[in-house]
Amino acid sequence: MNYRLVFRITGRTLLIEAAAILIPLFVTLYYREDPRPFLFTLPIMLLVGLALGFIKGERQFFPREGFLAVGLIWILLGIFGAFPFYFYELLVTESGQFTSFIDCLFESVSGFTTTGATILTNIEALPKGLLFWRSFSQYLGGMGVLGLTIALLPSIGARTLNVMRAESTGPVVSKLVPKASQSAKILYLFYGVFTAIPLLLYRLAGLGWYDSIVTAFATASTGGFSVKNLSIAGYDNPAVEVITTVFMIVCAVNFMLYFLIITKKWRAALKSDELRFFLIVIAIASTLLALDIYPQFSGVGEAVRHAVFSVASVISTTGYATVDFNLLPQFACIILVALMFCGACAGSTGGGIKCARLLLIFKCMRRELRQIIHPRTVNVVRLDGKVVEESALRSVLIFFAAYIAISVCAVLLVALDNFPFATTTTAVITTMGNVGPGLDAVGPMGSFSIFSPLSKLVLTACMIMGRLEIFPILILFSRNAWKRT
Amino acid sequence: MNYRLVFRITGRTLLIEAAAILIPLFVTLYYREDPRPFLFTLPIMLLVGLALGFIKGERQFFPREGFLAVGLIWILLGIFGAFPFYFYELLVTESGQFTSFIDCLFESVSGFTTTGATILTNIEALPKGLLFWRSFSQYLGGMGVLGLTIALLPSIGARTLNVMRAESTGPVVSKLVPKASQSAKILYLFYGVFTAIPLLLYRLAGLGWYDSIVTAFATASTGGFSVKNLSIAGYDNPAVEVITTVFMIVCAVNFMLYFLIITKKWRAALKSDELRFFLIVIAIASTLLALDIYPQFSGVGEAVRHAVFSVASVISTTGYATVDFNLLPQFACIILVALMFCGACAGSTGGGIKCARLLLIFKCMRRELRQIIHPRTVNVVRLDGKVVEESALRSVLIFFAAYIAISVCAVLLVALDNFPFATTTTAVITTMGNVGPGLDAVGPMGSFSIFSPLSKLVLTACMIMGRLEIFPILILFSRNAWKRT
Repeated sequence: MNYRLVFRITGRTLLIEAAAILIPLFVTLYYREDPRPFLFTLPIMLLVGLALGFIKGERQFFPREGFLAVGLIWILLGIFGAFPFYFYELLVTESGQFTSFIDCLFESVSGFTTTGATILTNIEALPKGLLFWRSFSQYLGGMGVLGLTIALLPSIGARTLNVMRAESTGPVVSKLVPKASQSAKILYLFYGVFTAIPLLLYRLAGLGWYDSIVTAFATASTGGFSVKNLSIAGYDNPAVEVITTVFMIVCAVNFMLYFLIITKKWRAALKSDELRFFLIVIAIASTLLALDIYPQFSGVGEAVRHAVFSVASVISTTGYATVDFNLLPQFACIILVALMFCGACAGSTGGGIKCARLLLIFKCMRRELRQIIHPRTVNVVRLDGKVVEESALRSVLIFFAAYIAISVCAVLLVALDNFPFATTTTAVITTMGNVGPGLDAVGPMGSFSIFSPLSKLVLTACMIMGRLEIFPILILFSRNAWKRT
Repeated sequence: MNYRLVFRITGRTLLIEAAAILIPLFVTLYYREDPRPFLFTLPIMLLVGLALGFIKGERQFFPREGFLAVGLIWILLGIFGAFPFYFYELLVTESGQFTSFIDCLFESVSGFTTTGATILTNIEALPKGLLFWRSFSQYLGGMGVLGLTIALLPSIGARTLNVMRAESTGPVVSKLVPKASQSAKILYLFYGVFTAIPLLLYRLAGLGWYDSIVTAFATASTGGFSVKNLSIAGYDNPAVEVITTVFMIVCAVNFMLYFLIITKKWRAALKSDELRFFLIVIAIASTLLALDIYPQFSGVGEAVRHAVFSVASVISTTGYATVDFNLLPQFACIILVALMFCGACAGSTGGGIKCARLLLIFKCMRRELRQIIHPRTVNVVRLDGKVVEESALRSVLIFFAAYIAISVCAVLLVALDNFPFATTTTAVITTMGNVGPGLDAVGPMGSFSIFSPLSKLVLTACMIMGRLEIFPILILFSRNAWKRT
């Protein structure tokens, strides 16, 4: 293991975080708020970043270095991103909302992993600069700070695609263009466009510039942090709900499809099996939800609007809410919990198991059945018309099993807090899926502040595990990976 | 598809069921109870059994015929086994406990699948003959009525191993002896021994003959139907609890290991990876449970006794109870729910996903990690020192995914009843795993009578799906399988 390189790449990412933190610092100064949370954080980030970022050593890069670097980077980003919250509580005001560094870490990791789960009980009590940082961390996390790293620091080495492979989510990664840094730039361009459009639309719909910006950040990154206690319901503005619904779905689609569209390969993009699966799931889930919640609302239109919003919010793993899930019938709740497992498309900013994986798993099951009925025929599994390799199918199935296994372990640990079954299980499901809210005490109007420090750490780990699709984190704890070769 | 053969084999199994029903009929007569529930059922079974059992046709047998026959048989056994309950309610007494034929079907399928979930609210109100049938159906289901069919009716065809493959649970089936009927007889011999010993021990511990017999039936089959409202706690007899604990574990072990032991292949038996995994899980789960529930009991001994009993009851998928799970802390509850997924060893009378499968899944995950760290090395997965074929691993992983997928679908349907999250989810988990009780309203002291007819049908389907390991039932609904070839 070439750990000098791993540390160097980690250090440079911290330097980017240090640069990024200047923006909320300016927001703080603009609103004449106390800038100390950011002023104290900056030198720490710079010190560690400079110390690690210029370690000398070979540039050879193998997949295991990529996986290890990605795991380390997300953990460190989370830790250093927590300092502004910590210094705020320590220096500015004893709000009592951040009871320990673990709370700050939870909030920071929830940001960088674009989860959107919060330990805050009164979001609106926080200063604008700090809330900006909270939303901005989701934006940074959105497409992967590392995508940024690759785009901006091609000097690290040519073999950076290995990092990309660990970073970009989903079972299949194809290169857009031969150079990884080029690919990252293209994806980043789309990301920028999908932030700018809802931002302007929010402004047109009547939100102020500040609210438009932070909400656009959290929408495009499918993060779901809101600056309102009542989430999107707090704006009480149907236009905002519609804009949000559209862009949550847009940003949960595989960004490569947009690349195909701008290069005029419309047909290939629209024929995507995953896209069709994703849209069909949204359509079915929204219809069922609307039918189920219809009696609770004053009209069909309202029921449909809330149903589509909730489905889009959960399947895109954003986690915004316009209704409290706990007030819906159990059938609606279970649909939403099932969507938390499902998650968005591969290659998007969303989390969860991913539609492409579920689709491949269903295809594997169908093949298994066919093989029992006609044992002598050879069956292959295809995605978008192309045969999927057996090793890729195996990885998908193993990922699914690992996802469930880790969720069960996490539920066991969180159960030590002795909260009801629904709270315990959905807290884990929603953090693993990077959604945000669950049911019961961790519903959209609830807060993760109720948990013990141990549970908060476990749920923090779930967020990182879910975001990085498990294996980079398991490698961090594998003795084998740390051996020098 | 050779469906004449499928119907013939199904019909003959019904004739065996007709013969089996004579035993509870004698019990009824012995206790001078109303024999009409059985007298009315008998001709129906005989009529359909004779009509189907002598259909003429070819004897060619392929795996799909085996899978299809097994699926049909279990459904028909359940339906015809429900008639005694139905006629009891109709002719003897309107107890109100069986509100419709669906209730009777639920109870009957719960018996044949050795689940032990009940829609009864006052078990002790039922006559002894009917309760005998309830326990005896578990005994028949225990090792698979079809194992019996193979042993008694070798005339059906030489290719019966295909039926065995679909019937016997678990990922790997090796033949004990070359002839399938011989194998079935050997397994059945063990089954008889493991019923006789606890039966006699129960009698020695102070139970009457009737209670000893029916409890031994439900223990050896890991079924868990009790004739007491409070399950095993109703006897308030620590000796009975210890005997039950031991034989639940004994009957949840792969019966092939006992065959190895009597043929003096001790070493091979004790080296079984699955056995070790099973015992380690029991040891760890019991320790954690005992530590967690300790404050609720008057001493260490009592806490350990209840912990080991509960763990053995759930992992063996028996479902007896000495404590109400709902009174335990959430951590203990989650351990028990996790064990409901896990289940017993392959080739036993227990249900669930099976220890062998989980072990293979863990080994697959470890290999996946190793492959990321050292991509150029070739890794194989071994069980008991032997390399497991990739196709077998794939089947295990697909089975796991199908198990979860079907559970999620079932939870969605049951959620329409609008019961709390814990009730809805654990009702499905416990029926899929053939355990019996869940948490909350379906806890050990609860009843499945609360559910709507639709939910009862869904849960009935879960029991059959879990018992037959999903694919035989999916084949029943596959258009492809019914095509004539």
